[in-house]
Amino acid sequence: MIGVAETNRNPNPPTDITLLGLGAMGGALAAALLDAGHSVTVWNRTPGRDTDLVARGARTAGSAREAVSASPVVVACLLKHDSVHETLDPVVDALRGRTLVNVTTTTPNEARELASWAADHGVDYLDGAIMAVPAMISSRAGQIFYSGSRTAYDALLPIIETWATSEFHGEDAGRASLVDLAMLSGMYQMFAGFLHGAAMVGSVGMSAADFAARQAPFLAAMTGELAGFADVVDGGDYTVPNQQSLDFSDLSHIVRASQDQGVDPAPIAAVQALIDRQVAAGHGSEGFARVYESLRAGELVGR
Amino acid sequence: MIGVAETNRNPNPPTDITLLGLGAMGGALAAALLDAGHSVTVWNRTPGRDTDLVARGARTAGSAREAVSASPVVVACLLKHDSVHETLDPVVDALRGRTLVNVTTTTPNEARELASWAADHGVDYLDGAIMAVPAMISSRAGQIFYSGSRTAYDALLPIIETWATSEFHGEDAGRASLVDLAMLSGMYQMFAGFLHGAAMVGSVGMSAADFAARQAPFLAAMTGELAGFADVVDGGDYTVPNQQSLDFSDLSHIVRASQDQGVDPAPIAAVQALIDRQVAAGHGSEGFARVYESLRAGELVGR
Ligand SMILES: NC(=O)c1ccc[n+]([C@@H]2O[C@H](COP(=O)([O-])OP(=O)(O)OC[C@H]3O[C@@H](n4cnc5c(N)ncnc54)[C@H](OP(=O)(O)O)[C@@H]3O)[C@@H](O)[C@H]2O)c1
Ligand SMILES: NC(=O)c1ccc[n+]([C@@H]2O[C@H](COP(=O)([O-])OP(=O)(O)OC[C@H]3O[C@@H](n4cnc5c(N)ncnc54)[C@H](OP(=O)(O)O)[C@@H]3O)[C@@H](O)[C@H]2O)c1
Repeated sequence: MIGVAETNRNPNPPTDITLLGLGAMGGALAAALLDAGHSVTVWNRTPGRDTDLVARGARTAGSAREAVSASPVVVACLLKHDSVHETLDPVVDALRGRTLVNVTTTTPNEARELASWAADHGVDYLDGAIMAVPAMISSRAGQIFYSGSRTAYDALLPIIETWATSEFHGEDAGRASLVDLAMLSGMYQMFAGFLHGAAMVGSVGMSAADFAARQAPFLAAMTGELAGFADVVDGGDYTVPNQQSLDFSDLSHIVRASQDQGVDPAPIAAVQALIDRQVAAGHGSEGFARVYESLRAGELVGR
Repeated sequence: MIGVAETNRNPNPPTDITLLGLGAMGGALAAALLDAGHSVTVWNRTPGRDTDLVARGARTAGSAREAVSASPVVVACLLKHDSVHETLDPVVDALRGRTLVNVTTTTPNEARELASWAADHGVDYLDGAIMAVPAMISSRAGQIFYSGSRTAYDALLPIIETWATSEFHGEDAGRASLVDLAMLSGMYQMFAGFLHGAAMVGSVGMSAADFAARQAPFLAAMTGELAGFADVVDGGDYTVPNQQSLDFSDLSHIVRASQDQGVDPAPIAAVQALIDRQVAAGHGSEGFARVYESLRAGELVGR
């Protein structure tokens, strides 16, 4: 009777889920599902990584085939694209009719390849890109982007929301990964920019901590400029007034200062090269956001 | 008697100041000085840019020589390093015994060159690097970094603080410019990272505004990581635990995804190249902050 009462209170009753891969992230995802009261079957290539999870109520499968067969929903959290094929190709017949949620990090094209492989084998495919570290899963502090099967996303939302805030990005299975990688690309470029600046001031003995104390709040404030750049990019008119021009944004003095100080100017020189390309094409008086045109794809790719 | 009363109330009485260069920034600096009650003499190469300032009480000098001779403190806010020499070389004899505050944007080496030129001619030299746009001057919302003569900085603080928060960075005249350019280097790399990410998602039709709405708060939050990188850099031990390793930070899938989408991967490939250099040297298991070692000067330069 307790089960019925639970069901009455919760319109989304626990569903059986299989989790393949118990690394740092897979383990955290499995633990969150167990905490939410789901019936979880786990499998890991190398045995012995399931001890804690079994103590919390997980069921261990002796093989990938057994694991896949145990639940209508199979989550793969493996190292990379290749690991997914290595694990699932031999048991794809057992996967037929089930839903595969792949949160393994892949490129957009790898996700698209898996989606079409899944479609060929009668498997409903949802791709997930995790914007979180494992510790953020239990506190739901992260975000996961999804794309692929909208039906799978809608049906699984109550389950996958135990991990993080969920966002569906469309039926192109590669799109979640693309948004994720684009977000990370910005982050790593910001990190490299900081370390480049730290090396510049480090050349005269200023500590990186002193620099970070100034750079972190400055960059945080400057993220306020991004929406303005975006509006110009989306509008497609780089001549709208009140923009900082490409000519004004000439970074050659920064490149030179970096060289003068013996610091490799490569990351800022890469930015200057994008500016130069637009200036050379006669757009120097237009806004900085035009750097987008140095980077953009010629036509829409992947949709 | 009012003058005496003013002096009693204010330990830093108005000082006569000359401002050379009435462009967007020079005009804002002069206006702020007038608002603060200083006696201001202005000069601009091309006549006619002083109308508003004269209406607010500024005195116009007919020549650079007359301008320099009018005040013990001369502020230069010209286009670039060359403009300073073009303006001041012919009148350097009149500058002897005075203080030159140069807030024209220069590289560190150009500031150092001007400092030694000033020393040769008996001029006290303070270099300033403005972290603000003209509109921020009247509201004191910006920052100005200074370096060079400590005596000049201390004496002029009550005056220069009418423009922005002031920070003295040491007697190496190039240092204010270096910190300024390092801060801007980080900013432009963040901007380029954003535009690169926007081009990646733009390749499947996601708007830059949609991307900015996600990227801006994410980057702002990630500035919280910079202090941690700085501590590792300053500590000089890239093997301290709980860091994200260089191996884990491999960005080749982002580079590949960018290429797959037809987006120029140059700015993120530049970051990957810095990572690769450390991995190739056998440091893949060490922390991401080690990218600093791919950039840093071999030895301290300029002090
Ligand atoms: N950790 C994070 O912060 C984070 C954040 C976002 C996304 N992710 C993504 O989540 C996925 C898992 O990451 P993780 O942190 O859990 O990695 P991890 O701790 O290194 O674990 C890797 C997992 O993949 C398994 N595996 C590797 N190659 C395999 C193969 N050929 N066949 C079957 N299993 C294989 C490993 O099994 P064995 O035990 O047998 O080696 C292990 O379970 C990755 O794609 C990662 O990019 C992680
Ligand atoms: N505006 C900003 O947001 C900002 C921010 C930080 C730092 N700064 C720096 O502040 C300085 C001035 O910037 P700004 O915005 O005022 O520039 P601006 O509006 O373009 O004005 C340039 C000024 O320099 C003068 N000039 C140029 N070449 C000269 C020469 N050979 N001899 C004498 N005067 C010359 C111009 O005089 P004419 O009228 O005769 O051409 C004009 O007064 C620059 O170094 C800039 O990098 C500006």
